Amino acid sequence: MEKKETVFETIKTRRSTRNYSDREVSKEDLDMVLEAGRFAPSGGNNQTTHLLVITSQEIKEKIAKLAEKLFSGMEVMPDTYKSMASAILSSKKGGYNFHRNAPVLILTANKKTYSNNIADCSCVLENMMIMANALDLGSCWVNQIKWLNEEPEMLELLYGIGLREDERVYGGLTLGYADTPDGLPSRNPLERKGNEVTFVI
Amino acid sequence: MEKKETVFETIKTRRSTRNYSDREVSKEDLDMVLEAGRFAPSGGNNQTTHLLVITSQEIKEKIAKLAEKLFSGMEVMPDTYKSMASAILSSKKGGYNFHRNAPVLILTANKKTYSNNIADCSCVLENMMIMANALDLGSCWVNQIKWLNEEPEMLELLYGIGLREDERVYGGLTLGYADTPDGLPSRNPLERKGNEVTFVI
Repeated sequence: MEKKETVFETIKTRRSTRNYSDREVSKEDLDMVLEAGRFAPSGGNNQTTHLLVITSQEIKEKIAKLAEKLFSGMEVMPDTYKSMASAILSSKKGGYNFHRNAPVLILTANKKTYSNNIADCSCVLENMMIMANALDLGSCWVNQIKWLNEEPEMLELLYGIGLREDERVYGGLTLGYADTPDGLPSRNPLERKGNEVTFVI
Repeated sequence: MEKKETVFETIKTRRSTRNYSDREVSKEDLDMVLEAGRFAPSGGNNQTTHLLVITSQEIKEKIAKLAEKLFSGMEVMPDTYKSMASAILSSKKGGYNFHRNAPVLILTANKKTYSNNIADCSCVLENMMIMANALDLGSCWVNQIKWLNEEPEMLELLYGIGLREDERVYGGLTLGYADTPDGLPSRNPLERKGNEVTFVI
């Protein structure tokens, strides 16, 4: 395949993977995903995204349990963002693990006062998702820690694993092999009915 | 080259192109860039990014001139974001065209009240930049219209070309062939000293 077709296919077939096998991600593949993320563009070439790459089972569990505890203490309001409402309701029921125990959980942080923080983190995440797909790895954007960004207990936990006081988490990624018979993620592109294009000719 | 290497190289060699030749972007290539953008993931699969794809020379000029006028009426404050300060100072000097008359200017809009608006637009933009690079096209993220998002005169102009009342622009892209002898964008990756990785093992 030509370069343009390979890249187009990889972008187009990227889908969210929500169930992961235990199979570990090799250091080589993980490094390639992280390098792809680090090479995302940043506002004014600031390069202030900070990636927390969590493979420790203990820390992954601590984060999931604390998130569940914090969400279960929240109420769904009429204007609560749909996906956040679902996190709250699932947490109240119990047994909610937002990262589905994926082998790797990556949190993308950036400076709290930097106006391009969300945009820069998003480009890092998108690059990592595309690279994961090219490596036959599954991945899924997770926003739960962003929603708990200013919760003192969560901040304390995050400071303990390397987040700096002037940083906050603006997105996250789960990464691993899909829990499918062949270990490959689903790649059947979801139809785009939205993301409309208006031509101004 | 293997798929993973092709994708990695395309991501890693993407650089910002700021000077464009007059050479038109073919409909086929433009459609491929837009499709790559439309296939970006979105929060809860909402697909509410709206792409305004501007090739009209008249509209491109109107937008550039109005942006210059609005920036030139602003003052640089101690906390003004560096790139925005530079837009203000260049506009006061005169002759400032933020899109450098690239053949194509794409504005990415989304719902004003949607909490994932910036993140979703950013993924669309990142996909388009990667796809552009795979097609030997140059591109550059432009934030100027985002900074003028709530200016009544700019809003009026944007409503006239298709922006909806509940939408705002959260990013933009210039697209075209680089003004270089071979028409190819610079592809020498900028060193990543930042975008730090902390492993939590």
